Amino acid sequence: MIRSLVEEFAFDPAVVQLNHASFGAPTRAALTWHDAVRRAAEADTSASLGKALQDDLRRVGAVVAGLIGADPADVAIVTASTEASGALSTSLPLAAGDVVVLTDGEYESVIRAWQVRAEAVGATVLRLPLPVPAASAAVVDLFTALPARTRYVVLSSITSSTALRMPVAEVARLAADAGAALVVDAAHSVGHEPLDVSTLGAAAIYGSLHKWLPVPRPLGFLWVDRALVDVVRPAAVALHLDEPLLQRFGWRGTWDPAPVRGLERALDEWRTWDDGGRLDAAAALADRADQLLTELGWVPTGEPSMRPARLRGFVVPTPLPVLRETLAAAGVRLWTGTVPDGRTAARLATHVYTDEADLNRLAAAARSLPAA
Amino acid sequence: MIRSLVEEFAFDPAVVQLNHASFGAPTRAALTWHDAVRRAAEADTSASLGKALQDDLRRVGAVVAGLIGADPADVAIVTASTEASGALSTSLPLAAGDVVVLTDGEYESVIRAWQVRAEAVGATVLRLPLPVPAASAAVVDLFTALPARTRYVVLSSITSSTALRMPVAEVARLAADAGAALVVDAAHSVGHEPLDVSTLGAAAIYGSLHKWLPVPRPLGFLWVDRALVDVVRPAAVALHLDEPLLQRFGWRGTWDPAPVRGLERALDEWRTWDDGGRLDAAAALADRADQLLTELGWVPTGEPSMRPARLRGFVVPTPLPVLRETLAAAGVRLWTGTVPDGRTAARLATHVYTDEADLNRLAAAARSLPAA
Repeated sequence: MIRSLVEEFAFDPAVVQLNHASFGAPTRAALTWHDAVRRAAEADTSASLGKALQDDLRRVGAVVAGLIGADPADVAIVTASTEASGALSTSLPLAAGDVVVLTDGEYESVIRAWQVRAEAVGATVLRLPLPVPAASAAVVDLFTALPARTRYVVLSSITSSTALRMPVAEVARLAADAGAALVVDAAHSVGHEPLDVSTLGAAAIYGSLHKWLPVPRPLGFLWVDRALVDVVRPAAVALHLDEPLLQRFGWRGTWDPAPVRGLERALDEWRTWDDGGRLDAAAALADRADQLLTELGWVPTGEPSMRPARLRGFVVPTPLPVLRETLAAAGVRLWTGTVPDGRTAARLATHVYTDEADLNRLAAAARSLPAA
Repeated sequence: MIRSLVEEFAFDPAVVQLNHASFGAPTRAALTWHDAVRRAAEADTSASLGKALQDDLRRVGAVVAGLIGADPADVAIVTASTEASGALSTSLPLAAGDVVVLTDGEYESVIRAWQVRAEAVGATVLRLPLPVPAASAAVVDLFTALPARTRYVVLSSITSSTALRMPVAEVARLAADAGAALVVDAAHSVGHEPLDVSTLGAAAIYGSLHKWLPVPRPLGFLWVDRALVDVVRPAAVALHLDEPLLQRFGWRGTWDPAPVRGLERALDEWRTWDDGGRLDAAAALADRADQLLTELGWVPTGEPSMRPARLRGFVVPTPLPVLRETLAAAGVRLWTGTVPDGRTAARLATHVYTDEADLNRLAAAARSLPAA
């Protein structure tokens, strides 16, 4: 870990942090403004959680819209991707006989949410088997023969456990050809890779902001095509249900809007990293990790064009409990689990605080794994 | 405001705070532990938001169960009442032709949530007109002739805008006689008035903890009858959907569990107030407010037996905008709005920091209102 940058975060120095993507990590500066913003709000909550909050939501909603190439009228601020996914899966029109198509590499709770809805209305969910290791052409091929009555195609811009950059634009065209709408789970995009909602051909796109921007969790966004602005509503009815999109999602019952209020500060901090070349350096380290781990028999989950800048997935030729024990003993944090077919998977993220020594410590742990 | 106690909070000293009930108010001590707990979690989120969180949820779930007289197996921790209400209104069984009965004094979003569900399945919501000023016997009478196929009766233990302590046990008996299940919205109970879920005869009870305990918002609970433990699920599908109740509600997508983790500290702080007689003193001031404001023509929303300890509602003989302007100019914070029939309403809360001077400042503002 790069000491000068680690000190900007609140990490345990004994741990090698290569799991940035699971929860994000606010900096100490972000934790400090978050606390200050919370305290300031307590001075007069009738004001700070009333009109002032509405003003802040509008201001920050416009900032978020700017980040993703959207019109502010089509953007809501949500707590996190799950809230947005829940809103879409419960409120987008879906009728008996309709089909929702996604791959089994989509996020577990997103698949489950669509299954629950489909079951409730007599629709079906078609889970396409994601080939891992994945090639972009093979992924696109999955969507070339969409079933009749495919109503929605749900696709991650960057998948979670497999860490794959998906061919969204190509799938959007195939979905459109089939008369289906595309829903994009962009949980891992903002602050990580470019996301321009205006060019993707999607009907709805949502994601988290706390994963790749230094903003305290939880914070996320939901963008919907203009035609859906009046249709989409939160899964749990709260006050403001009948108001414009931003306000409709602006009060989910009592919540803590401090992360919203500090988003601009988080962006400023992120830009200093970007301007200083630190994000590019982290991406170079992700390439280096690919190289090191491939040499040790870990298999990248996708071809190079599908590898996101700072997030990499691997199939690991080791039973999952053994991998977990070994990484825990080594003090190395990665996400570990399985790819859809059950093989052991690991996912690493590099960030501004990552250095080559971290990768070497991971490689040493990987090298110590018993041969498969 | 009692200076020594105001200093325990983070209030603007220029404002008279009589609106505790809208959002609650964490103390400075609570804000400090909240920040410390958040920072500590950042050291190693793979652990702190993983297994450690599950352990903390179990520990605090048992504490919450103890507070409300429940078995921990029947309790979930939620962010706030709205989340729990959304879970119940979307997942409790409801069929075409069923009826959900509630008064128009229930919380706006709770009514709306049941309306949305009823509309989706072909059920109906019957809104009984709550008579204001209310008498307990008249409220009970509303529920004596429940329609055939009444599936649920939804009732607040303490209503929100009208601030009425409702006759829950009596309504529970009438609901049971009619074969209906009772759902209790206890948003304003815990930390305010006794709540024993085991004696109320309800099928489900939920509420907020951040309103009347000094815990940073949002934090709430959901209790369900054992027969419903496997039935109730969050409105938005998240991970852990198929796990036991506590875990099922324990990950709503990324969230901030710091309020959960500090609940015991909030209870300790609350107990020092209770042991020091400060909560009783606040209740005595609520009675004093009734007297002062009644003399000025404000009409209590209910008979004395329906007035909660530290929360009082009034019908105010003044147009709402005039009332709001006058209170704003006087720097006095109350909740203001309307009772169900549209008359102007105000609700005040007293708390440990309230003193008679606050009531006098409110009374002076009330006295300056133009005659109706």
